[in-house]
Amino acid sequence: MGLKNDLLLRAANGQPTERTPVWLMRQAGRILPEYRAIRARLSGFKELVETPVLAAEVTLQPVDILDVDAAIIFSDILVVPEAMGLPYEMIEQKGPWFERTIKSASDVEQLKVSSPEEDLNYVLEAIRITKRELNNRVPLIGFAGAPWTIFCYMVEGQGSKTFSKARKMLVTEPELSHRLLEKITESTIKYLIAQISSGVDLVQIFDSWAGILGPKQYSEFGMKYVKLICDQIENVPVTVFSKGAYYARKELALLNCETIGMDWNMDISETRSIVGPNKTLQGNLDPCILYGDFASIKLETEEMLSRFKGGRHIANLGHGVYADIKPDKVKCFIDTVKEFN
Amino acid sequence: MGLKNDLLLRAANGQPTERTPVWLMRQAGRILPEYRAIRARLSGFKELVETPVLAAEVTLQPVDILDVDAAIIFSDILVVPEAMGLPYEMIEQKGPWFERTIKSASDVEQLKVSSPEEDLNYVLEAIRITKRELNNRVPLIGFAGAPWTIFCYMVEGQGSKTFSKARKMLVTEPELSHRLLEKITESTIKYLIAQISSGVDLVQIFDSWAGILGPKQYSEFGMKYVKLICDQIENVPVTVFSKGAYYARKELALLNCETIGMDWNMDISETRSIVGPNKTLQGNLDPCILYGDFASIKLETEEMLSRFKGGRHIANLGHGVYADIKPDKVKCFIDTVKEFN
Repeated sequence: MGLKNDLLLRAANGQPTERTPVWLMRQAGRILPEYRAIRARLSGFKELVETPVLAAEVTLQPVDILDVDAAIIFSDILVVPEAMGLPYEMIEQKGPWFERTIKSASDVEQLKVSSPEEDLNYVLEAIRITKRELNNRVPLIGFAGAPWTIFCYMVEGQGSKTFSKARKMLVTEPELSHRLLEKITESTIKYLIAQISSGVDLVQIFDSWAGILGPKQYSEFGMKYVKLICDQIENVPVTVFSKGAYYARKELALLNCETIGMDWNMDISETRSIVGPNKTLQGNLDPCILYGDFASIKLETEEMLSRFKGGRHIANLGHGVYADIKPDKVKCFIDTVKEFN
Repeated sequence: MGLKNDLLLRAANGQPTERTPVWLMRQAGRILPEYRAIRARLSGFKELVETPVLAAEVTLQPVDILDVDAAIIFSDILVVPEAMGLPYEMIEQKGPWFERTIKSASDVEQLKVSSPEEDLNYVLEAIRITKRELNNRVPLIGFAGAPWTIFCYMVEGQGSKTFSKARKMLVTEPELSHRLLEKITESTIKYLIAQISSGVDLVQIFDSWAGILGPKQYSEFGMKYVKLICDQIENVPVTVFSKGAYYARKELALLNCETIGMDWNMDISETRSIVGPNKTLQGNLDPCILYGDFASIKLETEEMLSRFKGGRHIANLGHGVYADIKPDKVKCFIDTVKEFN
């Protein structure tokens, strides 16, 4: 029953490891031709997300092909708003799109707190299949979007440069905003607990749009709900990745979580000194470095590792890997981490 | 010949002022019905930018209607890449779009260093008309995009969530990237000097995409060229706004510029302590605050002003004003600054 490679979990829990564990955000999918071959047979991204046996298959690919120290379930943060009553589409070359968005109190009332077993069983099933197929080789990571990031999509209906509609609601309707965030939070807690029951070994909360809020607003509308989630998760380590929220690192350090994600803008030693020694830091190579040649990838990766040295660390990029990065470049990053001393 | 209201210039130069001066990024255009009335008569945004008498008219509107302490010439940072040989279109609801982009060394060779008198005379003419019409009531601000931000558009051809094409070029073709940045820099210096000769009283450099580069890359590919520009500007104060580049504040403080722009994520007292007392700080109210009611706008504005108190300050938003903000809310912000003691 024990994991053959439990480096990630030990690093997350602050236990000694022989070397730094490594995985990549967005490793499941995108970069591998093996992924694209499966994807090409299907009607679209959502069919893959919603077909457990295929979602499990692409989840395993990076473990088999790239030899990373963890799998992350292939899914999307937008399954939660959909389960709550707002269906989305993933439009090629454009990104997510919601036909209906949240505009009023009655829109919020009509949303339901989703039941993972009923509404998101396809993800739980994909987790169960993946766990079986992984056969304890490496840990499986589950994830969800942070409430503020989900709120953004629910109000905007798509990506945005300014997210000014979502931020307007925080200013003009703070109470309604909190009601919506509470509903998302409740759905997310249930969903993550169900993922854990289904077998994931660690969960990560992605607050992709944290950085568009100022410090005070992020504390009130973002961090508050991330904290509620962290306080409800038991039995597995939790990672929080609040992209861009450099000003919130002190508050992040107070969360009931084991690991804090770092984007590539954050200075490593500064972050360590803000956060203190009792959290694992995850990150933070600039994904664009993987466009470079092998020598420079090796050099930059080693430089990053040196800066993290002496503290708790999980090697990763500072953001999801870009779709046009070549797998052998990713492999070079992974191998450099594994060979580093 | 002296300005009736020179608060902005005195604040920029660190001289005593009776009160904090105030203006808004993107005040020329967008929010005013008087602007939309003019815009509605025209084929599009570019016709307005390229028709000096109309560009001057919308530049004056916020001075007449909102009573701000400065005018900023109505134009766009993308006039420079166009003048260098890459025409752009401004697509309604979508943003800028370039038919041709920079992909190779020969693309860079074919770009010319633009001559402002030949290629951008419509801006210079708009400046001359505006200066005449302003009749020394308030200073006129000129501006240009920073080389890195212009580089982004030249390589991507449009906005982007990741700007990974532009950032890829920095990694795979650093020398070519520098050649392109040098050409943009040379064009920008000439352009800003021509704006000054035509009458602007202060220039601002907008590095809108600074924050997508990590500290090392921004230092090498961003700041380096901003510094070259600052070192060539004489006779008027310079403002540098590197949006999102919180990690670069120490370097910004070393520039030959008078004022540093702050986005709404940056902590005011932290920024002051990083930058030291010898620069003016400009900003930094979250533009979304102007969606709130009058009482909260007043409260938040006063809180911001209190935090800046005791140091050199020009009041502004932390980003351009959003198009759907109501003019009376903007007026409330402006009046609050003027009445603050």
